[in-house]
Amino acid sequence: MSSILALNTLDIRFPTSLQLDGSDAMNPDPDYSAAYVQIVTDATDGVEGHAFVFTIGRGNDVQVAAIAALTPYLVGRNVEALLADMGGIWRELVWDSQLRWLGPEKGVMHMAIGAVVNALWDIKAKRAGLPLWQLLSRMTPEELVALVDFRYLTNAITPDDALEIFRASEPFRAEREAELLRGGYPAYTTSPGWLGYSDEKLERLCHEAVADGFGQIKLKVGGNLDDDIRRLRIARAAVGPGYPIAIDANQRWEVSEAIEWVKALEEFDIAFIEEPTSPDDVLGHAEIARGVAPIRVATGEHAQNRVIFKQLLQAGAIGVLQIDAARVGGVNENIANLLLAAKFGVPVCPHAGGVGLCEAVQHLSMFDFVAITGSTEGRVIEYVDHLHEHFVVPTDVHDGMYWPPLAPGAGTEMLAASRAEFTFGRA
Amino acid sequence: MSSILALNTLDIRFPTSLQLDGSDAMNPDPDYSAAYVQIVTDATDGVEGHAFVFTIGRGNDVQVAAIAALTPYLVGRNVEALLADMGGIWRELVWDSQLRWLGPEKGVMHMAIGAVVNALWDIKAKRAGLPLWQLLSRMTPEELVALVDFRYLTNAITPDDALEIFRASEPFRAEREAELLRGGYPAYTTSPGWLGYSDEKLERLCHEAVADGFGQIKLKVGGNLDDDIRRLRIARAAVGPGYPIAIDANQRWEVSEAIEWVKALEEFDIAFIEEPTSPDDVLGHAEIARGVAPIRVATGEHAQNRVIFKQLLQAGAIGVLQIDAARVGGVNENIANLLLAAKFGVPVCPHAGGVGLCEAVQHLSMFDFVAITGSTEGRVIEYVDHLHEHFVVPTDVHDGMYWPPLAPGAGTEMLAASRAEFTFGRA
Repeated sequence: MSSILALNTLDIRFPTSLQLDGSDAMNPDPDYSAAYVQIVTDATDGVEGHAFVFTIGRGNDVQVAAIAALTPYLVGRNVEALLADMGGIWRELVWDSQLRWLGPEKGVMHMAIGAVVNALWDIKAKRAGLPLWQLLSRMTPEELVALVDFRYLTNAITPDDALEIFRASEPFRAEREAELLRGGYPAYTTSPGWLGYSDEKLERLCHEAVADGFGQIKLKVGGNLDDDIRRLRIARAAVGPGYPIAIDANQRWEVSEAIEWVKALEEFDIAFIEEPTSPDDVLGHAEIARGVAPIRVATGEHAQNRVIFKQLLQAGAIGVLQIDAARVGGVNENIANLLLAAKFGVPVCPHAGGVGLCEAVQHLSMFDFVAITGSTEGRVIEYVDHLHEHFVVPTDVHDGMYWPPLAPGAGTEMLAASRAEFTFGRA
Repeated sequence: MSSILALNTLDIRFPTSLQLDGSDAMNPDPDYSAAYVQIVTDATDGVEGHAFVFTIGRGNDVQVAAIAALTPYLVGRNVEALLADMGGIWRELVWDSQLRWLGPEKGVMHMAIGAVVNALWDIKAKRAGLPLWQLLSRMTPEELVALVDFRYLTNAITPDDALEIFRASEPFRAEREAELLRGGYPAYTTSPGWLGYSDEKLERLCHEAVADGFGQIKLKVGGNLDDDIRRLRIARAAVGPGYPIAIDANQRWEVSEAIEWVKALEEFDIAFIEEPTSPDDVLGHAEIARGVAPIRVATGEHAQNRVIFKQLLQAGAIGVLQIDAARVGGVNENIANLLLAAKFGVPVCPHAGGVGLCEAVQHLSMFDFVAITGSTEGRVIEYVDHLHEHFVVPTDVHDGMYWPPLAPGAGTEMLAASRAEFTFGRA
């Protein structure tokens, strides 16, 4: 029997804007940051839960304050009871009526809850001696369904639907796990495509992406159409015909503008257009999807919760669903998102990059493969080769594949030295 | 020429949960709170800008932290330049790429921006010697259009559409203003309907509402169907046939449940059903609207921004649009919401109550009447008789009408003594 002693928070910021890494049409100068939480217990095993909300700089302090505001909900609680009912603590935090007013289920407060829930998952996986993807993949269908809050989802998916999905995969779990360990999970890279890079750097990184075995690249677009055409021409020449190139407008466009702009780029054989407009605009995405077909629309890294994902699927607005490990209410809500995608037959291609997002989200795709869809067809996890060295269990990406992490935990623990060095405001 | 000296913030909480004021199916024990901001300048006029985000207790500290995070954006800035381009400062804050990641345009960070923008409007109106509704009503159509950010709106309304709407009303402004001053703006009351009240109190308050001249009452529903039927029977008997009774489920239901529940109450002649389900579920509201017609669906107090309102209107999901003074990005974004409602021909019936929401939102409805719609047909501002005594310019509601405030400012300044007494955590 052990109790939670503390929720420690840190405001961690990396000065990435100095290199223009991560520059796009909406985010010219991000400083990749983590509003970080460390949950400490009084257990003698020394296991701690680590997780974070990813931000891009200013405001990271507000996100930290939101996580810290959850301290009284957790400190003093029995750890075993919390870990035995991970759906329960999710509901307790998300449905706290007073906190709920600050969203509801969106923005700073919801992401804070996601980080705390993910830190508890980190403890649970470490205690089990398993990486998160394996821990989840070994839970029973009933246990998994109990993790998910189906409120506001039942006109699209019910607990019974979810149970059926999990049960259908159960007999295949062992062989899928072996397949994953043998062959990895496909990755794609965004490294070539940041707007701040020169044409020469773009071309070189495109060649490297193909040589490194990645199955897709992605270019940022939406700043200037002539630039986009020139950069896509360079990229297409570098990777050759037939190789998938996705594009990402980072919410830059109006609906009609998105349709026109994407159609002006269609000669370059576009795999999908990501974030063409406001992430809140379900109907707008549906209109764009109709306007740019057969090019698929992708979104999700800024989709605030499962209710938005539900509608994007109901409206036929997306052909690719992009979960993010640190945007919604943690692992539990992302399981809801994976189930929705499976129900509607839409592939999940997670957003990653930033800091720690690759480390975190790979667990969800691998769980999806083993316990939900059993397929990597049309599925790729985004990969950006930045800041992995700061994590206790950095991603293992080579030969164009994410290789399953085997170390216990959720992958979200940053090295103590990195935490100390990049804590904001320290001299 | 003057500069901003400080953004002072306060965590103000009223212990309203002790009386069960404000209790509903989702919020059993709210403590009405204000994350409060006071903008101080170095001008010799002594004018300060006051505004707030309304919350219901826990987490108010997080909302305060978000407002405080905007300090470096404002302190030292030239006041006259800011006030001369209120659309500019809105865009500067909302489109700050790093802060934007925390929403985008939703939740804690967006509401913080709304409070700061509203505090600037308070300064602008006080300096002009006008109540906010009159200040806005005297701006030119071009000046008003420049306040609004049409990004993500242009497939529903363009700046030209907005200009046309304002110009069409321009010749009638003076007579409408006189009409408002003569006759007031219709109010409705939610005071009878809180779930925590006894049947006797409900009945008494219903009689009082009619006697006080209110044109509508609203009852909270969604906790228990038998209770709702009993309470609606009491209310209907008390107010008599034909008198409008609205109901409010505070997001309690699934889509199909909403339709069944409302249909089970239709014998009581329901004016509208408010917040039947998640405020994010545009498609769900549309399905409910089709299922419960001719009863109209209303929502908006938790609608995060203009993109949600746009879609609710595009989808035919609402017959009543409910703006809230402290939920979206301040006065500017609410002008966008008023324009959208006018474009789609849907009446605006603002959410109010809480603390200070009546004081604030009345200005927007009065501006809407004078400069946009020229009609109070089917339009009522919510009124709850709580906590007005804490404001420098409390609402003047009598004979069932909001009477136009004449004092300069936005109505959002709380008395210094109240601020001091209810600052949270002070002994």
